[in-house]
Amino acid sequence: MALPIMGNVKRLFPVIQKHHSLRRLFCAGQCVERKEAPRGRVFSGIQPTGVPHLGNFLGTLETWVSLQGQYPSVVYSIVDLHSITQPQDAALLRVNTLDMAASLLACGIDPERSILFKQSQVSEHAELSWIFGCLTSMPRLRHLPQWKMKSKQNNEGSVGLYTYPVLQAADILLYKSTHVPVGEDQVQHLELAQDLARIFNHMYGDFFPEPRALLSSTRKLKSLRDPSSKMSKSDPQNMATVYLTDSPDIISLKIRRAVTDFISEVTFDPQARPGVSNLVLMHAALAGCTVEEAVCQARGLDTGKYKQLVAEAVVLRLTPIREEIDRLRGDRGHLERILADGASRARELAAPVLKEVHHRVGFC
Amino acid sequence: MALPIMGNVKRLFPVIQKHHSLRRLFCAGQCVERKEAPRGRVFSGIQPTGVPHLGNFLGTLETWVSLQGQYPSVVYSIVDLHSITQPQDAALLRVNTLDMAASLLACGIDPERSILFKQSQVSEHAELSWIFGCLTSMPRLRHLPQWKMKSKQNNEGSVGLYTYPVLQAADILLYKSTHVPVGEDQVQHLELAQDLARIFNHMYGDFFPEPRALLSSTRKLKSLRDPSSKMSKSDPQNMATVYLTDSPDIISLKIRRAVTDFISEVTFDPQARPGVSNLVLMHAALAGCTVEEAVCQARGLDTGKYKQLVAEAVVLRLTPIREEIDRLRGDRGHLERILADGASRARELAAPVLKEVHHRVGFC
Repeated sequence: MALPIMGNVKRLFPVIQKHHSLRRLFCAGQCVERKEAPRGRVFSGIQPTGVPHLGNFLGTLETWVSLQGQYPSVVYSIVDLHSITQPQDAALLRVNTLDMAASLLACGIDPERSILFKQSQVSEHAELSWIFGCLTSMPRLRHLPQWKMKSKQNNEGSVGLYTYPVLQAADILLYKSTHVPVGEDQVQHLELAQDLARIFNHMYGDFFPEPRALLSSTRKLKSLRDPSSKMSKSDPQNMATVYLTDSPDIISLKIRRAVTDFISEVTFDPQARPGVSNLVLMHAALAGCTVEEAVCQARGLDTGKYKQLVAEAVVLRLTPIREEIDRLRGDRGHLERILADGASRARELAAPVLKEVHHRVGFC
Repeated sequence: MALPIMGNVKRLFPVIQKHHSLRRLFCAGQCVERKEAPRGRVFSGIQPTGVPHLGNFLGTLETWVSLQGQYPSVVYSIVDLHSITQPQDAALLRVNTLDMAASLLACGIDPERSILFKQSQVSEHAELSWIFGCLTSMPRLRHLPQWKMKSKQNNEGSVGLYTYPVLQAADILLYKSTHVPVGEDQVQHLELAQDLARIFNHMYGDFFPEPRALLSSTRKLKSLRDPSSKMSKSDPQNMATVYLTDSPDIISLKIRRAVTDFISEVTFDPQARPGVSNLVLMHAALAGCTVEEAVCQARGLDTGKYKQLVAEAVVLRLTPIREEIDRLRGDRGHLERILADGASRARELAAPVLKEVHHRVGFC
């Protein structure tokens, strides 16, 4: 599933305005700017795709970590049920799931403050999804962007691919979640969750909150080889993507080879100079400064020298994370215990919700 | 769902031959004719539609009862998850579920010899259904007869209505069932279960048996008001359908009002004389004799007198069942305990199957 924080808010606005009332979809303002402590429960999910890349880290995982300190209840799921909507090798899926768990922990997800679990270990997700499927009309899913995109790639998708926005809605509402960090590509899926909350409440009495999107101003990183597309695991060019487990040498090499242009001065202009602007974004995000401050630091450096500076910033930030991932990967039992404990705490929240849903629907 | 025994084998043959190899779909011969004791596990489901009618009793429930003595393991589910693919009133669904349980017990389903349970109490059904949905292509379901029929009635159906044959496949395979009593309208759904068993086995190694259809030669009862259509709960004419809880007076009235024709002699000719032939069928099935024997008993009687004879046979057979349903309806706690015990035994079979499926898919 992956519901990463939205990158470019400006680009998203027309989409939102076209499809939905802005006020209903989003919570007022960015959470980082709120004065009073937010209430409610955050839910998000990420597919078990193995070790994340730098784009995931800056776009999603940093936000996940920061939300732990902002909301009283935070639920993060490694959504393996969603992963099988595309063909998977079983052995690789097992490894990728544990690698994702290790990466989340290494990035700062704290199993004391968050509930971190594997979706397939909590049966209530699939159970609620069935019930929601009976409240969702077939055409409602036909025009969702993920189906249109992915089913075209494979000629015709599976029932799972078609219906997974319903499972996403169940993932969110099962915990009566109030806030969901979402990426642009997930906005219409969150709308489905909101619609299902309303439909259920209308039919069976008020029960589910309507979950709202959480905004972040972090911009999405681009491919190092093609700065017109975002950084991605599925990029066929292996120099395009920096992984959290890349060694310092590999990181330096990838950034040295990053596509820029023939102007040696460093400026920030994503339209005219996407390659170098991507490096500035990366630098600013990793050094925890603004884009302007990053450009300021680059004054007097040509892009070659600036790439060294950026590589140093990436290495500095990722080295402890890489070391922690390596350490955690070595203790599979520990990872499995954390996930099992998370699943048990998730079930404690989910079971009474499903029980009440069963009662209202007439199953008990 | 309702997977009742097929009525008219002859009518079914062209359907089978068109869509499937006969040998693969059906087990060899009728079970009642088998010399050695059959092995394997029977699964069937019935929707919680309240007290069944006489057509259900003769077409499905009698067979369910008889299979208990023929197979070492028999699993019967009241499929409430399927029921919500059509809109349901929650309070009515609760009553109808318990009424169905009471009726099944009163007809002879023995909770010592069968596992009788409510589908929603066993989470593994929905969980396996999700996995199977990821192995089923969207077009595979588009042409199944139930979707084509029911979605037309409602203009557009729900996701649940579209995908419920996948849940049916999960219902069956979750218990590694080998035999399934099916109605004509369910033949293509059983084929989907067989396909899913093969697809799963091909992808993840041999695991599921391919379940086979169980045949019965019992013919389906027709509406008493319109013998061209089958006896049904949804018949708008309330004289058309005999319920297991109808009083002797009501039964006599309904049969007295049954549509026949202007010939007073009793003969069996379903094409030319559907009304009186329907009464002969009913009579033979209830008296446990052949159609020829029933016609023989009617010699010398006009249809009016014969209706009295048929009504007496129906009343004789249904009176103890009606009294037992009434008794059981009065003890809701007892019914709920039986269903809870059944669910617990169903879970004992289902949990290791789902666990192994999870392992093979790569979830654990």
